[in-house]
This record gives sequence, C-alpha cells and structure tokens, in this order.
Amino acid sequence: MIVRKFTIADASFERSPGQHGDVFAGNLIDERHGGPITIGYGRYAPGQSIDVTLAVDDVMVVLEGRLSVSTDAGTLTAGPGEIVHMPKGEAVTIRSHEEGAVTAYVTYPHWREPSSAA
Amino acid sequence: MIVRKFTIADASFERSPGQHGDVFAGNLIDERHGGPITIGYGRYAPGQSIDVTLAVDDVMVVLEGRLSVSTDAGTLTAGPGEIVHMPKGEAVTIRSHEEGAVTAYVTYPHWREPSSAA
Repeated sequence: MIVRKFTIADASFERSPGQHGDVFAGNLIDERHGGPITIGYGRYAPGQSIDVTLAVDDVMVVLEGRLSVSTDAGTLTAGPGEIVHMPKGEAVTIRSHEEGAVTAYVTYPHWREPSSAA
Repeated sequence: MIVRKFTIADASFERSPGQHGDVFAGNLIDERHGGPITIGYGRYAPGQSIDVTLAVDDVMVVLEGRLSVSTDAGTLTAGPGEIVHMPKGEAVTIRSHEEGAVTAYVTYPHWREPSSAA
C-alpha cells in the first residue's frame, strides 16, 4: 500500500447497512485493500436517527454539522473538529440535527464483511 | 470502555518522539485504555518538517491548515476535511506550511509502546 490522500469527492456513498434513513457511508480504504482498518466519510441528512450495535471499534471525526450519540449512560453531542470514539460492543443511537452532518471515520477491524468468494 | 467525545482541549500535547521540531501529539485513547487503536490530535507549528518511518497504520484527518506528505513516489498536500492514510512501513516526510496545521489521528496498532513494568 502507498500513502494516499482522500477528499469527500472520492467517496461513493451508500446507505448504511440495515438502515432506512438518509445516512450514508463511503469507504475509501477497506477490506479490499489488504490493510487492517477501514477509512471513509459519513453523511447524515438533517434530523436522522440510526441505532447501531458496534461490531468494531469506530472513530468519527465530525467535519460539518453536529451528531448526538446516545447510550444507556447518556447523550453526547459533537461538532466540527470533535472526535467520538464508539468502542466495539456498545449499542448507540446516532442522531443528526437540523443542519445534517459530515464525518470522517476509521474502524478497526473492517466493519464490512469481505464478500464471499465470487 | 464507553462512548466518549473529545475536543482538542482534552489533548495533552507532547513533542513527537525523536523529533526536535515543533510538532506535537496528544493521545486521547491509547495503550493505557485497553483497546486496539490510538486516537489523538496533532499540532504542527508553521514551517516544520519531520521524517517518520511508519511503525503502524496511521490516518490523519486535517482539521486546520495544510500538510504535505512526501514519499519516494511524490508529494501530496491535504487541507481541512481531507484524510491522509500512511500505511505501516512507509517512510514519509511531513511538512507544515506557513499557517501550521491541526490534525485528528487514528493509528492501528498503538504507535507508542506500552511502558515497561514499573
């Protein structure tokens, strides 16, 4: 692998798996590239809410807008330049606000299973 | 571990190991917390240059300013909202420009060795 730079224009956004809301993930580096981590951008339309149980360690860096993350322990809200760490095993509800949100994310290991043999 | 939010004010910056320039790293989550990844903020004064051979996979999200990363293959420059992936094993020179830079970083595994038994 080589050193690479990504911008949000490089991401091919897809609806987050199992979600019906307007929450999208665009992987840039993932299980197809042979490394240990997944890197991508996330995009949340205004007023969305998704429930996720983390199968991996997930780090979100908020680039635009705000996201609130709720667990049994309470709710935190992060804005531009802030980082949210969601450890593997946590059950979270992620909510966007009226302005939506854009994130950069890194997960270990990959959040998406490798495709079965073609 | 629990879901946590970090801002740059949470980081305790230290000079990057083996560096003499004004380049600082502030870990927020690392080998002391029991998880697989290190998370932190980086701060580069204007016009700094550091040479690093990556012992780990390192992802930088540029939050402020610009950074140029050079390898044998060439140089890329990243600004706010852009992501640079530096795979383990790469030898890089990272340069800040006249405005300095702030990054959020994630590494796998931890870039800092655990302290030896006290």
